[in-house]
Amino acid sequence: MKITRVVTADVRFPTSVDLAGSDAMHPDPDYSAAYVTLETDGDLAGDGFTFTIGRGNDLCVAAIAALGRQLVGVDVRDLERDLGPIARSLTNDTQLRWLGPEKGVIHLAAGALINALWDLRAKAAGVPVWKLLADLSPVEIVALVDWRHLTDALTPEEAVELLERAVPGRAERERRLLAEGLPAYTTSAGWIGYPDDVVAARCADVVAAGYRQVKIKVGASAEDDLRRVRLVRETIGPDIRLAVDANQTWEVAEAIERIRQLERYDLAWVEEPTSPDDILGHLAIADAVEVPIATGEHCQNRVMFKQFLRSGAMEICQIDACRVAGVNENIATLLLAAKYGVPVCPHAGGVGLCELVQHLSMFDFVAVAGDQPGRIIEMADHLHEHFLHPVDIRDGRYRAPAVPGFTSTMHAGSIAAFRFPDGPVWSGR
Amino acid sequence: MKITRVVTADVRFPTSVDLAGSDAMHPDPDYSAAYVTLETDGDLAGDGFTFTIGRGNDLCVAAIAALGRQLVGVDVRDLERDLGPIARSLTNDTQLRWLGPEKGVIHLAAGALINALWDLRAKAAGVPVWKLLADLSPVEIVALVDWRHLTDALTPEEAVELLERAVPGRAERERRLLAEGLPAYTTSAGWIGYPDDVVAARCADVVAAGYRQVKIKVGASAEDDLRRVRLVRETIGPDIRLAVDANQTWEVAEAIERIRQLERYDLAWVEEPTSPDDILGHLAIADAVEVPIATGEHCQNRVMFKQFLRSGAMEICQIDACRVAGVNENIATLLLAAKYGVPVCPHAGGVGLCELVQHLSMFDFVAVAGDQPGRIIEMADHLHEHFLHPVDIRDGRYRAPAVPGFTSTMHAGSIAAFRFPDGPVWSGR
Repeated sequence: MKITRVVTADVRFPTSVDLAGSDAMHPDPDYSAAYVTLETDGDLAGDGFTFTIGRGNDLCVAAIAALGRQLVGVDVRDLERDLGPIARSLTNDTQLRWLGPEKGVIHLAAGALINALWDLRAKAAGVPVWKLLADLSPVEIVALVDWRHLTDALTPEEAVELLERAVPGRAERERRLLAEGLPAYTTSAGWIGYPDDVVAARCADVVAAGYRQVKIKVGASAEDDLRRVRLVRETIGPDIRLAVDANQTWEVAEAIERIRQLERYDLAWVEEPTSPDDILGHLAIADAVEVPIATGEHCQNRVMFKQFLRSGAMEICQIDACRVAGVNENIATLLLAAKYGVPVCPHAGGVGLCELVQHLSMFDFVAVAGDQPGRIIEMADHLHEHFLHPVDIRDGRYRAPAVPGFTSTMHAGSIAAFRFPDGPVWSGR
Repeated sequence: MKITRVVTADVRFPTSVDLAGSDAMHPDPDYSAAYVTLETDGDLAGDGFTFTIGRGNDLCVAAIAALGRQLVGVDVRDLERDLGPIARSLTNDTQLRWLGPEKGVIHLAAGALINALWDLRAKAAGVPVWKLLADLSPVEIVALVDWRHLTDALTPEEAVELLERAVPGRAERERRLLAEGLPAYTTSAGWIGYPDDVVAARCADVVAAGYRQVKIKVGASAEDDLRRVRLVRETIGPDIRLAVDANQTWEVAEAIERIRQLERYDLAWVEEPTSPDDILGHLAIADAVEVPIATGEHCQNRVMFKQFLRSGAMEICQIDACRVAGVNENIATLLLAAKYGVPVCPHAGGVGLCELVQHLSMFDFVAVAGDQPGRIIEMADHLHEHFLHPVDIRDGRYRAPAVPGFTSTMHAGSIAAFRFPDGPVWSGR
């Protein structure tokens, strides 16, 4: 069975209308997927995507098409052996890498394609991606990673040892995963565009639904932030964890001052306090405040994760399934986080990011970091209905997917309806 | 006079044929420009571009077209007052910024447009860009910069003070600039694809032409690097400076080992020893070796420059005219480099990068850092014939351009001939 065609789609949801997804830096997002299907001459296809917030989704689609050409002709059986080298060749095209290197549009596109390859490989194997990964040997896992520019922090040999130590506990953790799932928190209660009464009502709802952590957006005026954080803390009571997300809005000194004002409300973490590129700025903030500093959703590649994790600037590691070059590069980050003892709490506010990233957390739980205190996965409660196999959350916990693949397949009807600019949802505007 | 139309062109030169421009990471570059013309309803037009090495140039062109829409209708007279806010609005589009933020394709595109705006503004003022910048007041210069995420290293107030200190010497330095130019070094002698005899012959030629520094590519095998460096040092003698460029190929520990092997040949600097994203890796290398560590051509934005410069990881600051968001963001970097006392020695190996970046160095010399020891500008000796006003190098020194604008305008015939994929140079292949 060979890949015969790379089919792309520019799918956009008009979320800016009701401000779902709004934050201090992104007041009007239209949650979008630069979607790709790897068609084969057999009865399987691999689906993947990268997430954007509207304008520019077309650039990612074009980059996916450009990079994807090299996948035509790949034999699906060879993915078992070659997914490491293929992923490296997608991120190291000798001319395209100039556009990054390994960042921005070209890297988002590589992520979509590499995730689609994993969907295809897992479908061919008849297992979900988390299970496929969790059953690989340490040596097989390590061979998936591009080790270039990582070895000052972690060598392949050390990574094999780290993974070997987790092997004896894999079966017991898999049993627990299947029985109990992994904990989720929700961001859907506190988008920055929501008025106070909506935030309070939604927080009450999600606690009633079994969530043990909520997250709200901050980064507006100091008064607004304080009022919202106090309101939510009063609504959810002292036993539910509360995280806040500043979405990059603060200067370093300002972040320290603002976080100190909010600390009294017992925060689980403060997310993206300043520029996502500012390793040394995050480190200064982390050193100055008690609350753990979280970041990662805009962290462009494994070299940045290496520095953030090793220096102590990232105290909660928020991997994103699509921002870096897909599963393979995320494995590098999971290994680094495990080495430095940093909990991985993925970013999933976006279209389909929950569906994808749950697999990575489940793999991390079973076969990499194991039973880590503080492990929790973001859940943003919208747009799941467009996927064939939406996430299954019960009592505030992600349940392990059982269907083969990456649960990354969108309904054909959703793609047709929301296709930009010619689908009926957009052409009528 | 208003901007009426944003016209783009995908211009590519088949440089991979003769390996001009080849290095350890980019063995087969086709030097390319994602070119843009801002047409007006008057008799002036602004030309800008970003540099790529072939595939993916189309993505930059598409991003320029997408971002450029917001410039239609801008009054050229307003650029005098508004180039700061306009540049910030190009880099902070609420949806497009997700694709970076401020990095990769979207940022390369912003650079092309902002440079084109400077070309237009300078043509309207009847002066070259370097002179226009060097005549601005400190307050006007500072207003051009996006200060977000910089203030922990440098505040606008400090920057004004720094610039005020340079005001008394401006006239004398401008006089010297016009009389003597600024020193250049050449990279054209030592592309990695060149055999030893070509490298030796070219090095002898450039020294004879008056250059006081050459640079060659390393990053091949240790033996090859040693042989090439020794050959060049023997060819040029002890009085000509010799820099080497590893183009990101080494791991951190490997870089330290390899640089120690080469140090005996009295190197001016070692460039891009490892990942361009690895601030802490560069810092470890800089701490371990005597030779100054140079980097910057792949440095994505001012937040990365801030960290590199402040930490001591970047001992030679290699700004690029197009990688960051054009003139405005480069001013931020010049100010940071001046504060931390790091010499600015621009990257210019590419199409038209020499033509652009000379203006920034001349501005830096006259009005920012002033008479800095070690100041030198890269010169790559090819493709200049495609520009209306190619750089003027005499006795190994860049002479100050006198024509109005950014010397960024390409011959219409060159654009037509090298347009990809339909120009005659490409359609025949």
